[in-house]
Order: sequence, then C-alpha cells, then structure tokens
Amino acid sequence: MNKPASNKYEETTLSSQPIFQGRVVSLQVDTVRLPNGETATREIIRHPGAVAVLALIEDRMLVVEQYRKALGKSQVEIPAGKLEPEEDLVEAAKRELEEETGYRAESLKHLSSFYTSPGFADEILHLYVAEHLEKGEVHLDEDEFLDCESITLEQAQQYIREQRISDSKTIMAVYAWQLYKLTGSF
Amino acid sequence: MNKPASNKYEETTLSSQPIFQGRVVSLQVDTVRLPNGETATREIIRHPGAVAVLALIEDRMLVVEQYRKALGKSQVEIPAGKLEPEEDLVEAAKRELEEETGYRAESLKHLSSFYTSPGFADEILHLYVAEHLEKGEVHLDEDEFLDCESITLEQAQQYIREQRISDSKTIMAVYAWQLYKLTGSF
Repeated sequence: MNKPASNKYEETTLSSQPIFQGRVVSLQVDTVRLPNGETATREIIRHPGAVAVLALIEDRMLVVEQYRKALGKSQVEIPAGKLEPEEDLVEAAKRELEEETGYRAESLKHLSSFYTSPGFADEILHLYVAEHLEKGEVHLDEDEFLDCESITLEQAQQYIREQRISDSKTIMAVYAWQLYKLTGSF
Repeated sequence: MNKPASNKYEETTLSSQPIFQGRVVSLQVDTVRLPNGETATREIIRHPGAVAVLALIEDRMLVVEQYRKALGKSQVEIPAGKLEPEEDLVEAAKRELEEETGYRAESLKHLSSFYTSPGFADEILHLYVAEHLEKGEVHLDEDEFLDCESITLEQAQQYIREQRISDSKTIMAVYAWQLYKLTGSF
C-alpha cells in the first residue's frame, strides 16, 4: 500500500556527533554530504514519538489545560503523551486518555500520524479518535498537573481564536472533527 | 481580543543550563519548581519559528519534495522555511514561496499559527494561504535541493495515505483546503 520513499537528493552521513541524551529528547549534529558534493551540518532531535486522542462525549471533546514550560504559558490541548519504550500505540493512547481525563475507551480509530517538525526532529505523533467512553479514574504522572474539561466544537474554535488552543495536534483534531460533522466520516 | 494566558500550575524556573547553541536550534535544561513544591527538569528546544504557505493555482496546490535528514527519507510538503531574525512574517512567507517554487504572491491570508511540539519546543509555525500567483524565479539556499510540483486535493489525500505527505503543517493545510471546498471560506 505504501510506496517506497523516494530518496532523491539523499544526504549521506559523514559523521554524527552526539551532543545530549536527556529524559525526553536527544540531540546530535550530523555532518552530511549534499547532492552537489558539498558538506553541511544537520542538527537533529530524537524523540520517542507520542500519541494523542480526540475523545468525544456526545457533542463535546475532552481537553486538558496544563502549563508548558517551553512556551512559558498554559495551553488547552487534547490528551496526549509520549510513548514508553516498546509500547503498543493503541495501548499508549488509551493509557494517556485515562491517566489525564479519567475516561476509558473500548476502541480507538486511527486518524493520522504526522511528523511535528521534520526540519529538525523525528518526533511522530499518532492521532486517534475515541467515542463510547466510560468513566474510570484520573491518575497523573508525579510531575504532571492539569485540569480536564469538555468543550463543544464552537468553544474549540473560540479557544483557537483566543490562542488558548494553539498546538498542531489539537488544531488538527478540531479540523478533523469539523470535517466529520460536514461529511459524516473521519 | 486574546484573553491573557491562564498560568495555573505555573512552573517556576530555579536554574537554566544552556547545553547547545546551533545554527537552527538551541537546547537548554531548566530545573523548575512544580505546583506541589517538588522540583523537576524540563528539556527545552528554542527555534526561531517558521512560515508555510498553502499556495493554490486554480485547483492545485504547490508542494516541494525534499530529503529530510532527521527522518532519513524524502517528504512532500508545502513550501516553508524558518524565520530570519527580525523578519516580517508575511514577507518571510512570500520569500520562502518564491525561493522554493518560483511563484510570487501579491497577498497572503493568515490561516493559523501553531506550536509544533509544545512539550519540548517553542517552535511556532505561521500558516498562510496564497491565491493569484504569478511566475517568478526559483532560487534555493545553497544547501537546499528540492523538486516542486502541483497536485489536486485528491492527489494530496492519496499522498497522505502513502505517507509521502506526513508532516503537521502540510496535513493541516490539506484539511483547511478540504474545509474551504466544503464551506466556501478559509
């Protein structure tokens, strides 16, 4: 089904310098040979990947508000989190949904998987939609503090205008939800 | 118009360690005080921000195919690039569009601005739509190699299924285009 990736203009790695190995990301600087024979450097962030869930309860979606240190402000986002090593994607999405919102999903449907910043990072985010939720229990990570609420599509669009929602996965989920309401399918 | 950001659960910076200052990104590790009084570390990537353009010529959008070293493969994306210091957003978007595709836009409409990876990076991407294009000249950066083509909405959706298109800004642009065709407005 998937065509093999075209690798025209491939950049050959001449050397790779590890700079940092952290809890969430690592950073390396690769020296590459360009298609014209010249060399260049590429700063590359490695990330384990993440899952996110558009979780719908009747006509409302679940969102969480949390402080984002990288942005220096709080943001409203759909439930999400990074993958644990070897973790199954659907299990990870169900885990994050329940940890952050207290809701359990029987089944999830895959909506899309996308690279967040292909210019410098390999992070991939797998987005799912969940309907038919049942109430479980919130249990946050020890360094995680957030509030959960459920909002309508109109509220979500208002939050986007107010920049309370301003991240790629959540805006993408709102677009997908809007398309679902117009076309009847995800 | 924009509400002040809520900063409930704010994390106070206790110290900030610079790790790396590169050509594109920088990395720091902050030690923070959490709302419960405990401390934690936050790995933070700083990025200058970027612009991207959904450029439509009649019923086709312009895309470029280029090798992405962070992903180890080529990808099809809308024209985009990072901001130069002090650069005006609309001028930057026009510049990247013309450099990569050879098309000039008289005017651009702002579609959305979003953080690509708020968990660890401050990169913000400003997405514009351009219609009424006129042919100018391609002039790529010296370390930039890419091919430009124009594709229909159906081809774009096929590319997404084939994972030739798989980054957040391009999938978001395709969603916005699809919504435009259904609703008549961006």
